[in-house]
Amino acid sequence: MARTEIATYGEFGLIKHLTEKFSLTNSSSIKGVGDDAAVLEYANKQVLVTTDLLLEGIHFDLMYVPLKHLGYKSAIVNFSDIYAMNGNPKQITVSIGVSKRFSVEELEELYAGIQLACHEHGVDLVGGDTSASVTGLTISITCIGEAEKEKIVYRNTAKENDLLCVSGNLGAAYMGLQLLEREKAVFANDASAQPDFEGKDYILQRQLRPEARKDIVKQLDEKGIIPTSMIDISDGLSSEVMHICTQSKVGCRVYEDRIPIDYQTASMAEEFNMNLVTAALNGGEDYELLFTVPLHMHDKVLEIEDVKIIGHICKEDMGLCLVTRDEQEFSLKAQGWNSLQ
Amino acid sequence: MARTEIATYGEFGLIKHLTEKFSLTNSSSIKGVGDDAAVLEYANKQVLVTTDLLLEGIHFDLMYVPLKHLGYKSAIVNFSDIYAMNGNPKQITVSIGVSKRFSVEELEELYAGIQLACHEHGVDLVGGDTSASVTGLTISITCIGEAEKEKIVYRNTAKENDLLCVSGNLGAAYMGLQLLEREKAVFANDASAQPDFEGKDYILQRQLRPEARKDIVKQLDEKGIIPTSMIDISDGLSSEVMHICTQSKVGCRVYEDRIPIDYQTASMAEEFNMNLVTAALNGGEDYELLFTVPLHMHDKVLEIEDVKIIGHICKEDMGLCLVTRDEQEFSLKAQGWNSLQ
Repeated sequence: MARTEIATYGEFGLIKHLTEKFSLTNSSSIKGVGDDAAVLEYANKQVLVTTDLLLEGIHFDLMYVPLKHLGYKSAIVNFSDIYAMNGNPKQITVSIGVSKRFSVEELEELYAGIQLACHEHGVDLVGGDTSASVTGLTISITCIGEAEKEKIVYRNTAKENDLLCVSGNLGAAYMGLQLLEREKAVFANDASAQPDFEGKDYILQRQLRPEARKDIVKQLDEKGIIPTSMIDISDGLSSEVMHICTQSKVGCRVYEDRIPIDYQTASMAEEFNMNLVTAALNGGEDYELLFTVPLHMHDKVLEIEDVKIIGHICKEDMGLCLVTRDEQEFSLKAQGWNSLQ
Repeated sequence: MARTEIATYGEFGLIKHLTEKFSLTNSSSIKGVGDDAAVLEYANKQVLVTTDLLLEGIHFDLMYVPLKHLGYKSAIVNFSDIYAMNGNPKQITVSIGVSKRFSVEELEELYAGIQLACHEHGVDLVGGDTSASVTGLTISITCIGEAEKEKIVYRNTAKENDLLCVSGNLGAAYMGLQLLEREKAVFANDASAQPDFEGKDYILQRQLRPEARKDIVKQLDEKGIIPTSMIDISDGLSSEVMHICTQSKVGCRVYEDRIPIDYQTASMAEEFNMNLVTAALNGGEDYELLFTVPLHMHDKVLEIEDVKIIGHICKEDMGLCLVTRDEQEFSLKAQGWNSLQ
């Protein structure tokens, strides 16, 4: 691959070069890159704002994450937060701090991934910042979205007897990460080793190229369902269930046998001799949606493709419990994914 | 000072602890920290969005920048971008990446600075992210502001014969930085050395605790002046004049003897044996406003406190020139401040 040094472009030139392939497609995007601030117009909708900071060595490892995938994922995790409010992402700003070891071509790869994610989700890149860094790669993305005021779904509004629903399946991204870490360790010991990824494509894809559930938000809207509460699963099911219940001042029961798990996730857990349910509860990075609906919507919610009912909301004093296959109850612990410890 | 390890709080606990002193004061801030995204409402205004990434070792040096000042400045530089659109900042999100060498108390200092800036400018903190970092401190701030559609001022709309105006004075922040760097070098050679800052308080303040010109935007509004173009001076006057002229497809004449320079800036430049005009033209970090107004507003614009007319806009083919005291013309070079080279 050709290698063009970043210094060739300079700060302004580099931003221009990396963003000139992006065009504005949303009517709410009035002015994008090129002034002191982007200009947006949201006359009839409320505005949603979320931000994520991704640091090399903490959130990603460039040993096994291709830059295009990293760009894609960096955008997707922000879109997911907007969907979790029952909104639609419309704009992002992207700031990167980058050391001299990166070439312009590598940054083009990163931005190609961001552009792909933007294209798939109808999002405009409207601003950002490019800076040198003394160490690795830093990516900071802010996403702006919209929703009708009446349709915004918060975390703190789950009600007793609501059904607890989840999209997709859980734990796959975590098992994908375990696999990548194992192969990295193998490679460290023997640089001629070829990674063993056969039959593991799904869990790798879930880790490297996660999806944000635009389709679920769309189907909820089409069926006229406004969840009573919603959150996206970035830190593991346990942690997110706890956020909803704590903030809504309710308890819940989650049924172990209802937690959706893909075959590859189960098979990988077995290979690693890990507890499958623990992986599904605490794995993180699933970017699925966890939401609650009133009990009478039972049949309607099951009409949505790829949504499962995994439990229900109960009184606060009943606590938060996982109900096992043999009907034992265990307190849910929000082990979560905590980068600060 | 007491030292509480960051790990004591964990990720969620730390964000909560650092942001709980912030309250929402703007009617456009519907929901702040605590959900997947913040919720804002901008029914009758256009929305302005700007973002800045600040990295330790590139944008700041904790050897001589107190954390409270750093927090203050990090917020101010974003507010300045919103004022440069003739808007008013209303919300910020703050993401920080922080290594274990920082204590909770130090982060409290950083947030105290951010809070002070927010208080002075009527801005609400509505979101953010806290993460571990393998190296130093990373601060990413996104600021959201508002303006009436008809009052937003872009960079690319300066017209021939417009007057070129600037607020405050230039080069002081740059000379403050030179002074801090000198004292740092002295200290490196002799740790018992005491810094020599006497009579240098103004240039130090301009470097460590810059102001964003809310007062200028307010006065422009009160006098019914909408500039034809505007930008804030973060990378040096030359660089910003060039942005306005290039994007507006015009030329300009800037008069050397009109460039406002403070006495301390001049005296420090002399002490360092540096060219004063070069420092004022290319120094950067002034966070003053550079704007153009139609010629007939000459008297009106001079009624604004702390604004000077430094030149005028001319035809594109006349180029961008500095006119010296002896009436010679030199091409303006946008040396700017380029962290990528």
